[in-house]
Amino acid sequence: MLVGRQSWRFDNPPVILASAAIGGPFESKSPLADDFDAFHDDIWLKQNSFEKAEVKLLEHACQKVLEKAGLQSQDINFLISGDLDNQITASSFAARSLAIPYIGMFGACSTSMEGLAVASKLLDNGGANYILTATASHNAATEKQFRYPTEYGAQKPPTSQWTVTGAGAAILGKEGNGPRVTSATIGHVVDMGVKDPFNMGEAMAPAAVDTIETHLKEMNIEPDYYDLIATGDLGFTGYAIANKLFQKHGIQLREGLYTDCGMLIYGKNPKVFSGGSGCACSATVTYGNLLNRMRRGELKRMLIAATGALLSPLSYQQKQSIPCISHAVSIESIQ
Amino acid sequence: MLVGRQSWRFDNPPVILASAAIGGPFESKSPLADDFDAFHDDIWLKQNSFEKAEVKLLEHACQKVLEKAGLQSQDINFLISGDLDNQITASSFAARSLAIPYIGMFGACSTSMEGLAVASKLLDNGGANYILTATASHNAATEKQFRYPTEYGAQKPPTSQWTVTGAGAAILGKEGNGPRVTSATIGHVVDMGVKDPFNMGEAMAPAAVDTIETHLKEMNIEPDYYDLIATGDLGFTGYAIANKLFQKHGIQLREGLYTDCGMLIYGKNPKVFSGGSGCACSATVTYGNLLNRMRRGELKRMLIAATGALLSPLSYQQKQSIPCISHAVSIESIQ
Repeated sequence: MLVGRQSWRFDNPPVILASAAIGGPFESKSPLADDFDAFHDDIWLKQNSFEKAEVKLLEHACQKVLEKAGLQSQDINFLISGDLDNQITASSFAARSLAIPYIGMFGACSTSMEGLAVASKLLDNGGANYILTATASHNAATEKQFRYPTEYGAQKPPTSQWTVTGAGAAILGKEGNGPRVTSATIGHVVDMGVKDPFNMGEAMAPAAVDTIETHLKEMNIEPDYYDLIATGDLGFTGYAIANKLFQKHGIQLREGLYTDCGMLIYGKNPKVFSGGSGCACSATVTYGNLLNRMRRGELKRMLIAATGALLSPLSYQQKQSIPCISHAVSIESIQ
Repeated sequence: MLVGRQSWRFDNPPVILASAAIGGPFESKSPLADDFDAFHDDIWLKQNSFEKAEVKLLEHACQKVLEKAGLQSQDINFLISGDLDNQITASSFAARSLAIPYIGMFGACSTSMEGLAVASKLLDNGGANYILTATASHNAATEKQFRYPTEYGAQKPPTSQWTVTGAGAAILGKEGNGPRVTSATIGHVVDMGVKDPFNMGEAMAPAAVDTIETHLKEMNIEPDYYDLIATGDLGFTGYAIANKLFQKHGIQLREGLYTDCGMLIYGKNPKVFSGGSGCACSATVTYGNLLNRMRRGELKRMLIAATGALLSPLSYQQKQSIPCISHAVSIESIQ
């Protein structure tokens, strides 16, 4: 059911039957490592390009989530996936090997929740029996494409973030045991004029706040409805800005309610500067740690507002500012 | 309602309240020119880059379709859009100026029908009041990104196609007058090993045939159910291959039933070699000529199977074959 202009309350909240998180070598040192299903100790995943390695990460997450759900790829009606690579090739090549009817999406690092939101709405009223939604990112593939090849060792400013090498996936079904997707808010593009691709947190924070504010308003709930509100990958820089914006907009968030996947994934590791980023950031944290915490009963209701910077290397070269977006999905433990 | 594995029959078939097609200077000489809403005689659209010009094309199509539907952008719940530019920047920048909650998609040249299919399913069961779905392509932006800058004057083989400079858009609503979207089939990736980015028709034809065959089977209908079946942008080369594949698969298509938007848009103009291509190819032909023919009563039922080559310049450089996809949407004139 449409609520307000841009939110859905699901009449038959889809069940997250299983979720999976796969990481690279650096992610194995994450404070959330226990919630990953597997790590690869070779950043190349035995492939001859980083892009091909990213395909393997995504395939691995999809195979793992199928295994955990006890399903085969032919049971799945639709794969909804996207990633940061030009023309989302990681997703399209994974869709080829998985042989599941495929809806390609792009929302940069917001793709995780864009996919989960659309999957849930398609499933809500009988559009599918099972949908697999997934996303991936690869540190070296992304850095090379958007900034500098990591081999250059280019100096980074403190606002920069570390693209997660990993993939996250979830399978949604109409019934069964597991956390349920109860509502979602599709964001609109917010662009405050930031042009620096080394400062995604500042660029994306206003979009996250806008979507969370819209979600609370349209669903007619207070922030305290949730046990946890997490943004996707604002990092420490963007998190501080988001907090200020919440205050400015009169949104009171109690101590400990609001966090950010980009801060959680690597903790305060100085190597990552402002925190984690990439499509796999919110995907691995949500589909690993956060859902596990919900399955353990530590969380009853959470809102994940994944955040995406919709720039391209070319739009940056053409001196355009960075259009940003955030999509929020509410996941609840309902018996 | 889900039918088979990958098709939807819409319980409340969404109405195409209005559609619009915008073209560039070359498109103004199209045999279908009368069905375009406007042309730009400057391929730069007064911008300083082709990518910015593409944003303008997309914005123009969206503004035109809003005007034709008698709606304002704030009436629209969701914009579903995608394009060929890296990180679909044409769509994201247009979404910024239109200020409509935005679901970014990528299906290469299949984006037109990917968007229409998903928009219809979201609208079918109360997920929106109005959805605007759109896509664009720009000849010079696309050629530069995927092959060679047009200024180089690189020689082309006879299998190559001409990327349409244009944009197409449609607004769907729950009720009102106009053709209705009755069913849709989401395709899966088909890759027969073609690696030549100058021969998209051969690469994509098997995906189109696969999706059309699946559609007919899952919907339990014969090809004769339709007055017209059109593929997206196979061009003359891909059309001939598709015809052979239909025969091989025992699918009988009566004379005149099957056509291709890539053949229709420029006719037999030797300048375009095998025909038109690009996201705007199936979008402008469908949202211009074909829907106008339906509105005039010349067509009652048509199936549009847009086709997409999901390669990236990098996947080609890394010597990968081209994963292809096709999404089919059935549009009918129902009183």
